[in-house]
Amino acid sequence: MAAINVLSEALENLSLEARELYLSSKVPKIEIPPSPLEFLRDWVNPNVPVIIKNAFNHWPALEKWNSDYFREKIGHRKVTVAVTPNGFADAVVGNKFVMPEEREMKFSKFLDILEGKVKEQGIFYVQKQNSNLTEEFQELCTDAASEVSWATEAFGKHPDAVNFWMGDERAITSMHKDHYENLYCVISGKKVFTLLPPSDLPLIPYKLYTPARFKTTERGNFDIVDEIEQITELSAEPKVPWIAVDPLNPDLKKYPKFAKANPVSCTVQAGEMLYLPSLWFHHVQQSHGCIAINFWYDMEYDIKYNYFKFVETVTDLVTKQSEKD
Amino acid sequence: MAAINVLSEALENLSLEARELYLSSKVPKIEIPPSPLEFLRDWVNPNVPVIIKNAFNHWPALEKWNSDYFREKIGHRKVTVAVTPNGFADAVVGNKFVMPEEREMKFSKFLDILEGKVKEQGIFYVQKQNSNLTEEFQELCTDAASEVSWATEAFGKHPDAVNFWMGDERAITSMHKDHYENLYCVISGKKVFTLLPPSDLPLIPYKLYTPARFKTTERGNFDIVDEIEQITELSAEPKVPWIAVDPLNPDLKKYPKFAKANPVSCTVQAGEMLYLPSLWFHHVQQSHGCIAINFWYDMEYDIKYNYFKFVETVTDLVTKQSEKD
Repeated sequence: MAAINVLSEALENLSLEARELYLSSKVPKIEIPPSPLEFLRDWVNPNVPVIIKNAFNHWPALEKWNSDYFREKIGHRKVTVAVTPNGFADAVVGNKFVMPEEREMKFSKFLDILEGKVKEQGIFYVQKQNSNLTEEFQELCTDAASEVSWATEAFGKHPDAVNFWMGDERAITSMHKDHYENLYCVISGKKVFTLLPPSDLPLIPYKLYTPARFKTTERGNFDIVDEIEQITELSAEPKVPWIAVDPLNPDLKKYPKFAKANPVSCTVQAGEMLYLPSLWFHHVQQSHGCIAINFWYDMEYDIKYNYFKFVETVTDLVTKQSEKD
Repeated sequence: MAAINVLSEALENLSLEARELYLSSKVPKIEIPPSPLEFLRDWVNPNVPVIIKNAFNHWPALEKWNSDYFREKIGHRKVTVAVTPNGFADAVVGNKFVMPEEREMKFSKFLDILEGKVKEQGIFYVQKQNSNLTEEFQELCTDAASEVSWATEAFGKHPDAVNFWMGDERAITSMHKDHYENLYCVISGKKVFTLLPPSDLPLIPYKLYTPARFKTTERGNFDIVDEIEQITELSAEPKVPWIAVDPLNPDLKKYPKFAKANPVSCTVQAGEMLYLPSLWFHHVQQSHGCIAINFWYDMEYDIKYNYFKFVETVTDLVTKQSEKD
């Protein structure tokens, strides 16, 4: 149908023109933190990522945070650890969207597993995004700031959550987007981010999956169990929309449009902070035992969000029409 | 066609959701100028208008600018005046887009006409947007600031143009949009702005018109003469796209979608400044002899512009398809 073709081309042009107008082919790096005004004007408004150096040199965490210190300070603490057989939490397996098993354990046991002192089946990752730094690791709070002062001033609000991340190098965060302005601080090791801008949405395939969760069997293997709690009265099998493509190894035969997307990869080293703008798609890898914390500031639901939702609607229309044809 | 109907509805929802998410039903007024950061965060980023009081109390213009002062200071100066038979410059007449006659005259003569001391056919308006304050009225420059300091800091650049406006109350600026962030300062009298946000674009009918210009005949009447200079080699009759509807008196039978737009009207009094965000549609009326200056800061061609162009493309597609059906 001619109109759908025009529309499909317009969606591809959105991505193309974003790159021509204002996106960079690599994530820029700045040597010192921006002023609140510069942060807002140069990065938040245009919605572009940046790596900021020397933004938290004064945090004791940079010196202190290691296995011995954690064992002493929070070794006794029960923490929530995401456990998967393969490192893929919140990821697609066949026709299911599989969440990790959430296991409670002492932090010292988590460290034993990470360091290979104790053998356990599976890949372990502390990644619970419920502001776990302030909720589960209170003893560590004084080692870092509770917010990023220039960001708080720029956004005119405090962060909604401060999350602590530590885990196995095999633990991968599958590609997704968040409704947050994200300041991601690597304390030790490094993280590799693969990023795609919101304007690439039309090129990124979403599919519907049955929600499920990994569950350890008595023998120590992993089963995939459907998430019954998610079944509502309205639908016997509610589906979760998730991204169907792996940006590091995309199946371009199945999803040819993704070839026109332009993922940007960047490495955030210890001592560096990534500003990851709201609604940017991101896929994350890490070095073994990498320690990081991130600050989530709620995004503004203003003109940019309004436009994004419109692009989403048009993308859905084109996708459905193409599937019919 | 079903897909076009879905698309048409999505475009209407864009407008509806903008109002639900972040637009106000009237233009807010603030008592003191914002800091550069507040200006950026609260008004420029979300792209919403605001009336700012007490922003230029210190300008000598507020006290000095009147007919006597102008006669003394710049009475001898040749200035460019837009002349039309009816007050409508850059407006639609039948199938033509008619620009005003541009007449050179001494400023004292313009004042004589405005004050009824000399009778002339037509409506006279000093409105040349070529930074005429700095280009044509240098003697007045020291009576006002050459830029708005907090805006210059917020935008990170100086204004591209500072324009001087003075004219007949019958002179109307027809609805249009500019690629500028606009700070509009009323020095004397008042201006009435009718504003529509960029998200209303799909509800605002554009048509193609033949460019033309008013031209006084020897008898003192006005002819409408096609603008031959605009005819290029590529096309014998290049057309100008312009808005086909008068927001104060819309022909809703012809343009029923416009009924879903929500124009907001506001009056800017002497001593007040309107922040008119880039790409907002505006229609302007004024009190007789109203004096104003405005600052045009070039807009950023970033994610918002990228999205706007996409909405424009989809709107064009739906419009063309509807015309076919």
